[in-house]
Formats: sequence, structure tokens, C-alpha cells
Amino acid sequence: MHTIEHYRTEFISYLQEKIEIKEPANLYVPIDYILGLGGKRLRPILTLMTAEIFGTDYKKAMNAALAVEIFHNFSLVHDDIMDDAPLRRGKKTVHEKWDINTGILSGDAMLIMAYQFFENYENPIFKDLAKAFSVTALQVCEGQQYDVDFETRDDVTIPEYLKMIEYKTAVLVAGAMKMGAIVADAPEKEQNNIYEFGRNLGIAFQLQDDYLDAFGNPETFGKQLGGDIIENKKTFLFLKAMELATKEQQEELGHLFSIQPSDATVKIETAKQIFVASGAAELAKKEIKNYTQKAFSELDSLTLKSDKKKVLLDFGSQLMNREV
Amino acid sequence: MHTIEHYRTEFISYLQEKIEIKEPANLYVPIDYILGLGGKRLRPILTLMTAEIFGTDYKKAMNAALAVEIFHNFSLVHDDIMDDAPLRRGKKTVHEKWDINTGILSGDAMLIMAYQFFENYENPIFKDLAKAFSVTALQVCEGQQYDVDFETRDDVTIPEYLKMIEYKTAVLVAGAMKMGAIVADAPEKEQNNIYEFGRNLGIAFQLQDDYLDAFGNPETFGKQLGGDIIENKKTFLFLKAMELATKEQQEELGHLFSIQPSDATVKIETAKQIFVASGAAELAKKEIKNYTQKAFSELDSLTLKSDKKKVLLDFGSQLMNREV
Repeated sequence: MHTIEHYRTEFISYLQEKIEIKEPANLYVPIDYILGLGGKRLRPILTLMTAEIFGTDYKKAMNAALAVEIFHNFSLVHDDIMDDAPLRRGKKTVHEKWDINTGILSGDAMLIMAYQFFENYENPIFKDLAKAFSVTALQVCEGQQYDVDFETRDDVTIPEYLKMIEYKTAVLVAGAMKMGAIVADAPEKEQNNIYEFGRNLGIAFQLQDDYLDAFGNPETFGKQLGGDIIENKKTFLFLKAMELATKEQQEELGHLFSIQPSDATVKIETAKQIFVASGAAELAKKEIKNYTQKAFSELDSLTLKSDKKKVLLDFGSQLMNREV
Repeated sequence: MHTIEHYRTEFISYLQEKIEIKEPANLYVPIDYILGLGGKRLRPILTLMTAEIFGTDYKKAMNAALAVEIFHNFSLVHDDIMDDAPLRRGKKTVHEKWDINTGILSGDAMLIMAYQFFENYENPIFKDLAKAFSVTALQVCEGQQYDVDFETRDDVTIPEYLKMIEYKTAVLVAGAMKMGAIVADAPEKEQNNIYEFGRNLGIAFQLQDDYLDAFGNPETFGKQLGGDIIENKKTFLFLKAMELATKEQQEELGHLFSIQPSDATVKIETAKQIFVASGAAELAKKEIKNYTQKAFSELDSLTLKSDKKKVLLDFGSQLMNREV
């Protein structure tokens, strides 16, 4: 097995080799730009790592990993248009650097390019990859739609919220790992186990992201702390607090999540106090642990040797041991 | 063989059966809406017809035909956003009836759904279809990009224009027919012949569309006559006239294609006069005939029986015998 850093370096050099600026340049330059912005490359690394865990040279999984990364970036480009986001990884978003039409069309081309990278695999691997990819990709679109819908709804339930983050975030983590298993020709049952590992870990990861957005360490958390509160996002913390808090707290939180003060300091502090006082913060931590445990218990069903399982366990532990 | 009308009726009922409104409804209702708006269903009909010409029950090609039609509608939804078009087939465009974000996301979902309909085919047909589809789909995106680029360029050449309409329009006609041949398991050489037939016929069709936009019969031409002139579109007629006209005419045409008068009657009439006087109109007719002939000559290389070739010949003749 190789280190995460090794996979990342190898993946980035493969990406740079394969992504070329062709004509028409106005279509392909933005694709090169967004793919070059960096990011943790978590999803393609998972594809490579999973292929190797199931006994195949990780290099065989490069094209599947590239498809996953291109799809992920396609979804970022289109989501950033929908969210009117000016920045991505500290740089201008595609529609901000160029325009909305460029963002739409370059995104479309990326989605098609992702499918094309699967063509490097023979049948039946090709069909299995394309099928797994399409299911996942469509769920990511559905997750984004739920996210958009929830903005204007005030009756979102916790199960609905969990389904939204599952579709919008977790299934691609799960799908990325499943594709690695497919490339390695792992039995279908093992493919599904590793998918479930990724799905549960993905949900835990997103719940933790929500938690850290409010309670993270400002020195290590990558984004602006309290961002979700500023944007009135109905995360797990908010929904759970609205369920558990006293009537007075509910009214205050409801009010806070209807305003957008220019200085959000007090808003953020008050919301966080209610998250804690209502017990929502504690329950969020419990839920994160639950999903992480569910992920790890999937490993028991795998017929892998224990050193391979340990790689996944270590990866999951490291991912979930960010500053809580 | 069946009539065009038979293919159309059967295709529409298959489409209605297969396209369901699932959750989240805000994602799938717009998809159902655009696919239900009608249109000639030319591309899927070509897929069905070609499958039958190559000796397979056309019903086997239904899923490929559906993928082609869904992709075509995906491209309409995204193009209408980029062109800021309020109407499509006389009804509100998706982004106009809902909003731009709905148009982007529903379009994305359609592109993925198109790939999923190929999953109904076994290997190697599945892979052949997905490959042919991806190449075509990416070219359609490239064609749209060229079209966008040309709006702000004043040095577009005739070969560049021909490449743009080939990518934006003709390759999907060609691809639709090739996919029918793939479903019928036709030899690769025949697949390529039928692709070339469709490609040349598609270019002829688009050139004729440009011609009719200026010189068509107002009673039978579906769109507003002179629409391209009103929008200052650099079609074959304009580019050829700028090449052939006297210096005076060139200056006048250049000026006309830089203004947008509220009453365009005089602008349209003057432009048409220059198209005729410069010989561009006559040359356009010649070019249309050329590409139609090229398409028909592809039929000579096919090993099909003459009654099957006649179906394609009749189809092409009918298509090109619109009011010129």
C-alpha cells in the first residue's frame, strides 16, 4: 500500500498529463482552470486506494479516479452558479472569472468527458463503472435540488436533511470507492460493502463539517466560521435545536435565521449558545460518532486481510479526527 | 418498413411511458415539461428507422432513440438559457417558466438520464452506444461554444461556419443514425457510411434552414422570417455576401448587421437584396445541393438492398424539399 500523499501526487501528475486545452479554447480553458485549482483530491484518492486494497495496481484505477474528480468539479462549477458564489478554493469561480454561459457549457463538457475516461476499461468493467457513475451522478443532482428546495421551506425534517447530505455529498464518496472496487474486479457483495462504508463515512463527514462550521477551531478550519449561520442554512444543528429548544429559544433562533445583519458576531454567538443549550450540539456529535461507527462496522463484513482493513480504518479515523 | 408517422407515434408513447415525475419534483417536472412540448422528433425517428433498415426490429432501438431525444432536449434547455430565449416551440422555455438554476440542474439530470437509457443494451452494444454518444455530445458542446464565440468575432470564415453547424446540428443527426446501426449490429463500415449520410444531410438541412430564414415562404416556414438578419447572425448568406459583394454593398451589409432597428422591415429587405445581388443566395442553394448529393452518394457504398436505400433517399428528399 501507498501513502495518501503518494496517491495525491501521482493523481495530480496524471490529471495534468490528460487534461489538455483543445479548441475551442473558450470551452477548455475554464475546465483546465477549475481542475487546476487544487483541493484535497479526496474522492479520486479513495478510488485509487480502494482499487489497491482489493488487490489491483492503483494505476489501473487512474482513469476512473479522473472521471470522479472531473465529475466533482463539474458539480462545483454548476453549483457555484446556482449559489452565486464568487470564490472557490480562494480563487474566482468559473462563472465569475468568465460568465454564467461559460460555466454552464464547460460544466456540460466536463460531465461528458467524465464518461469518456471510462472508455479506457474493457467490458464488463466499462459498463459496471458507467452504471455506478450514472446512479451516483443523478443522486448528486437530486441532492442539489433538495438543498435548493430546503432554502424556501420551513418544515424540513431531520430525515429529509440527512437524505439531502447523503445525496449531495456522501454518495460520491461511496461511488468513488465502489468504482475502485469495480476496477479491481471485487465481488459485487464487497463492492456494496465498500459503498456502504463510504456512504456512512460521507454522511459523518458532512455532519462534522456542519458542526465545525459553528464550533471549529478558527485557526485550522478552512472556511469562515459561522458561515452556515450567516447564510441561515438549515443544518442538523439548526433543525435539531428547533426540535429540542424551549419555546423562547425556538422563537429567538427562528428570528435569527430570518435576518442578515451586516455584523453577524452577535447572531453567530447567540445561535451557538442555543445549539449548545438545547442539546443539539451534543446530539450532533453523537450522530457523527454513530455514522462513523456504522461505516467501520461495514469493514467487518469484508473478506479483506486485516492490514487492508486497517488502511480504511486509519483513513476514516484521520478524516474524522479533525478539530471538533 | 414503417411510415415516419408510425415511428413518431410509437416513439411518443414510449417516451410518455418511460419519463416519470419522481422526487424531487422540482427537478423532474421541468424534464417532463420540455420532453412533452413536442417537436418533430426527427432524431429519435432516425434512430428507429436506421435500426430497421439494418434488419432489426425498430422497437429494439427505442431506448437509444429516447437517449438521443433526451440529449437533444438537454441541449435545448441549456442553449435557451445561454441565448436568453423566452420561447421554445411556442411555449415558455424552462428557465423562463421556472428559473435559470432549474434549467441548469434539470438539464444536467437529463444528460445523465440519456446515458442510463443505454444500460438496457448488453455489451458490446452498450459500450459502442455510449462511446458514439459521448463523442457526439461533446461535439455539440463545442459547436455551441463556436456559435457563442462567433457572435463577437468579425473574421469568421466560411469553413469555420460550416464546422460550427456541423458540430452544433449535423453530428447529432449523424450520431442518431449511427446509434440505430449499432443497435442493429451493423458492420462498422456501414455504421460509418450511415453516419456520413446523416452528417452531410444535417449540414444541408442547416444551410437550408439559414436560406429559408431569409427566403422561405412566410406561410409554411415555422419561425419568424428574417430572424437571423434581425439578430445579426453571421450565417452562410451573410459571410458569402461579405466575400462576394461590391465594396459599397459590403459596407451597407456591415452597417445593417451592426444595428437593431425597432422596425426591421427595411433592414431585412435590403440585406436580402444584397444576398441575391452578390450571388450569395445562389451559392447557398448550390451548397445545399452539394451536401445533399454528398449524403446520397454515401448510400452507394452501403450493401443494403435497394428498397432500404430508397427509404433513406425518400427521407432525405422529403426533408430537403421544403419550400425553398
